[in-house]
Amino acid sequence: MSNKEISQAVVSRLPRYYRYLGDLRDEGIERISSQELSQMMHVTASQIRQDFNHFGGFGQQGYGYNVEYLYTEIAKILGLDTIHDMVLVGAGNLGSALVKYMNFRRRGFVFKAAFDIRKDLEGKEISGITVHSMDDLKDYVEQEQIDIAVLCIPKQEAVKVADLLAQTNIKAIWNFAHVDLHVPPRIQVENVHLSDSLMRLSYNIRQYEEGQETLPEQN
Amino acid sequence: MSNKEISQAVVSRLPRYYRYLGDLRDEGIERISSQELSQMMHVTASQIRQDFNHFGGFGQQGYGYNVEYLYTEIAKILGLDTIHDMVLVGAGNLGSALVKYMNFRRRGFVFKAAFDIRKDLEGKEISGITVHSMDDLKDYVEQEQIDIAVLCIPKQEAVKVADLLAQTNIKAIWNFAHVDLHVPPRIQVENVHLSDSLMRLSYNIRQYEEGQETLPEQN
Repeated sequence: MSNKEISQAVVSRLPRYYRYLGDLRDEGIERISSQELSQMMHVTASQIRQDFNHFGGFGQQGYGYNVEYLYTEIAKILGLDTIHDMVLVGAGNLGSALVKYMNFRRRGFVFKAAFDIRKDLEGKEISGITVHSMDDLKDYVEQEQIDIAVLCIPKQEAVKVADLLAQTNIKAIWNFAHVDLHVPPRIQVENVHLSDSLMRLSYNIRQYEEGQETLPEQN
Repeated sequence: MSNKEISQAVVSRLPRYYRYLGDLRDEGIERISSQELSQMMHVTASQIRQDFNHFGGFGQQGYGYNVEYLYTEIAKILGLDTIHDMVLVGAGNLGSALVKYMNFRRRGFVFKAAFDIRKDLEGKEISGITVHSMDDLKDYVEQEQIDIAVLCIPKQEAVKVADLLAQTNIKAIWNFAHVDLHVPPRIQVENVHLSDSLMRLSYNIRQYEEGQETLPEQN
């Protein structure tokens, strides 16, 4: 099976499948049909079958899917069957909250160290990991063969740090800075732009309100 | 001009335009062509013109766009010309980090209060807002006419709180819980599923590595 041409739209849906299957597994459910999954997830059964066909199908139609098998296979496709070593860059409020969030570790995403420009944070501990000087970031990433850098720093800093990381063998950047990063294609970038998300929410509020104003009055 | 049929894909690009235009404005740049914006943003000029045409065009081709005007107009479309009162539900690490993040306030998203089930947090302050008992959430939202609830709580709790909020006139939920919420269509929901984001990153790392393995060797 070739995953080469899977669209990012399908990829974006995989974590959601994984989440629902994890819940089903936790509830002790062994088999589920695409129809049942469809009702739970509010997507069409045909969409689910199409998505799964990209990855070889996973099960017989009519008989349904084996939950445990499907969960494990999707985990493999998502690369969750390995440990990813991570560093935090920027040990402020958001960064510290991410380090303290245990669900990442449970899925194999493990913070090994934090880095910050603030001298007063150096040597401090956050949930068992130590804050180092930013001067040590490059060496640390190289020596410890870190996979993912998590950037929780202002945008000007993020651009500089991304350039620095591009000189290492880091595999990915999880970017919370409010800026688009330009790095070589061997480095995967995933952005979490919280302000963008809040603006989409605000847009949808306004659209809904404008839609209500133009509706004929109902009694 | 009607925004009714604007796709969520266009909407998702608007905050990014807004961000780039804000940067240009901060740098004192007054006019910009779609070609220049295209190069900065790594999207085609034709895409930019198409997107802007959904909202009436914003400017003359050839002569370029007025940065300040475009910035202000996109702000209006995004609903950033009003103040949005928000409450935080779940005053843990992530929630507290969001309250402390000043960029939201700068754009008119203002936290008024926090709510938590933990009795020891009651009465505590986070960046000037007070943590209240969860029992008071519904009354507070109704009396203070809160627009947006920000959910930073475990998924089982989030489902219950969403049901409770559906009994109020709240306009939107910004959901950080790892669950899909089902609320009436008058309540807009925007999800920030951090684990999903990290899984997409992990997927893209694996895809890149598998792609490298199957490439012919280069010297």
